[in-house]
Amino acid sequence: MNYIKAFAPATVANVSCGFDIFGFAIEEPGDVVEIWRRDEPGIIIKDIFGDEGRLPRNPEKNAVTGVMIHLLKHLGITNFGCEVALHKNMPLGSGMGSSAASAVAGVVAMNELLDCPLARTELLPFAMEGERIASGSAHADNVGPALLGGFVIIRSYSPLDVFSIPVPKDLYCTLVHPDIEINTKDARYILRDEVSLKNTISQMGNVAGLVAGLMKEDYDLISRSMVDVIIEPVRSILIPEFNKVKQAALDHGALGCSISGSGPSMFALSRGIENAKKVGEVMKRTFSEAGIESSTHVSLINQGGPLIMEKN
Amino acid sequence: MNYIKAFAPATVANVSCGFDIFGFAIEEPGDVVEIWRRDEPGIIIKDIFGDEGRLPRNPEKNAVTGVMIHLLKHLGITNFGCEVALHKNMPLGSGMGSSAASAVAGVVAMNELLDCPLARTELLPFAMEGERIASGSAHADNVGPALLGGFVIIRSYSPLDVFSIPVPKDLYCTLVHPDIEINTKDARYILRDEVSLKNTISQMGNVAGLVAGLMKEDYDLISRSMVDVIIEPVRSILIPEFNKVKQAALDHGALGCSISGSGPSMFALSRGIENAKKVGEVMKRTFSEAGIESSTHVSLINQGGPLIMEKN
Repeated sequence: MNYIKAFAPATVANVSCGFDIFGFAIEEPGDVVEIWRRDEPGIIIKDIFGDEGRLPRNPEKNAVTGVMIHLLKHLGITNFGCEVALHKNMPLGSGMGSSAASAVAGVVAMNELLDCPLARTELLPFAMEGERIASGSAHADNVGPALLGGFVIIRSYSPLDVFSIPVPKDLYCTLVHPDIEINTKDARYILRDEVSLKNTISQMGNVAGLVAGLMKEDYDLISRSMVDVIIEPVRSILIPEFNKVKQAALDHGALGCSISGSGPSMFALSRGIENAKKVGEVMKRTFSEAGIESSTHVSLINQGGPLIMEKN
Repeated sequence: MNYIKAFAPATVANVSCGFDIFGFAIEEPGDVVEIWRRDEPGIIIKDIFGDEGRLPRNPEKNAVTGVMIHLLKHLGITNFGCEVALHKNMPLGSGMGSSAASAVAGVVAMNELLDCPLARTELLPFAMEGERIASGSAHADNVGPALLGGFVIIRSYSPLDVFSIPVPKDLYCTLVHPDIEINTKDARYILRDEVSLKNTISQMGNVAGLVAGLMKEDYDLISRSMVDVIIEPVRSILIPEFNKVKQAALDHGALGCSISGSGPSMFALSRGIENAKKVGEVMKRTFSEAGIESSTHVSLINQGGPLIMEKN
């Protein structure tokens, strides 16, 4: 094989009560990576589209090519040469799992080009390495769902224990990205190191309720469980109009609404596409009334994960 | 109806990672309550067997009759008279949900005697009142499963949100009660008010894993998720030989092992009755080698909850 084009989806991490342990993939947008094999060894970044020149062009420091180098090293392949193009289809630092989508598209494309020496689940540590290159922290709550698809639970980081659970067929996500930016490191920095035992118990109850609600297809239980007493009250301060936008979503039938990842994007879950679209409209309008432009995506939970779009 | 005899089962609360939010019922032992209607108004405690004289004989202060008084008051019944007998079939302060079994047997018996004015789930707040009378705290993680049967999640206390989830058919509980006593209030008092965010995340991961594991019938996932980094490290100090007994259970095939409720009883979950019996033997032997006598119960998760044994 001499050419691969692969897609990996945007993701919503944390999912209200599930800080660092829950994430799910959506159908679009997503990033696309192309690889052209060449005779001379070494990985070259040919083009990056859609990043406004902000991503590193040094292959070691770029998440996409960084994970490829890491994978080749692990496989003991030394004389490999290729050119890489990355198409960014979502904004950086948006809370939509931008770096995860790039890293996953990159590692899936490279594995495919090599005739799949590793199973998809085995690629997870490599994709996490991409997160480390991009943000300094090897979190799995975006790369997990971007790689595996579906609604993903990260039970443990050490040892790594990641799996997906079924979700109701009529569950739709509305993702709204306001045109403001939050630094992920800042969003983590403002969190407290300690949590009251009382809040820990509340959060555990909601985590248990959300998993049970998704697996039982119980929309009411999903809705009652989408409560975050630990992270959202702190991080929502960084998102202008957060409370108004959330309330508008809930008033228009959303099951729940919270921060996507570390923000500033917000997501809502709804039963049925019509409701999810309506929720998107009112969230966008509420941001707009405060002078903040936003883009909206409505999607089923993506069960497939990454996609090989072309190969030859 | 003039006579009722009702049974309610022992329960395991907390279930490793699920402090205050998880509990399940077992098949035996359990407490039995008898009620004989009489013409004169007022509730009289006729007999209490098996408590070594330690439970209050004042009907207002006894959990069983206390819940009956509470239920009658709620229903606006003022001229009701009966005699009550309580058969305690498990030790007090054992961590086996002793007061919950008594309160649930009492409220279920009285509701039946009155021709079931309330549905079983509606009895939960009354049974919780029994816990408040017995221990000063209206917890639901024993009365919930004792009343509803099965594996129960308490998503929220305010508003009260309690439901059960399915469990694998071949999942057995081994419950071992060492002949020592812990005061439930002490066991709560030694807990810290604050939890690190890191431990909160670990615990949430295990809570999510245990719910998913039970619902997917994934014994390995159940086993990996039975890890408590918050409560067990503190409370296990109160149980002599805890670490040795737990290790013996795990070494002999238990999926997991932890404190039942606030102790001193310990429970293990196993796949299959033979394994659960073997685990019970080695736990008992390990206690015994340290000079501590213990009693052992092996049982399926009780899916039925309370039972009306006789009525006429």
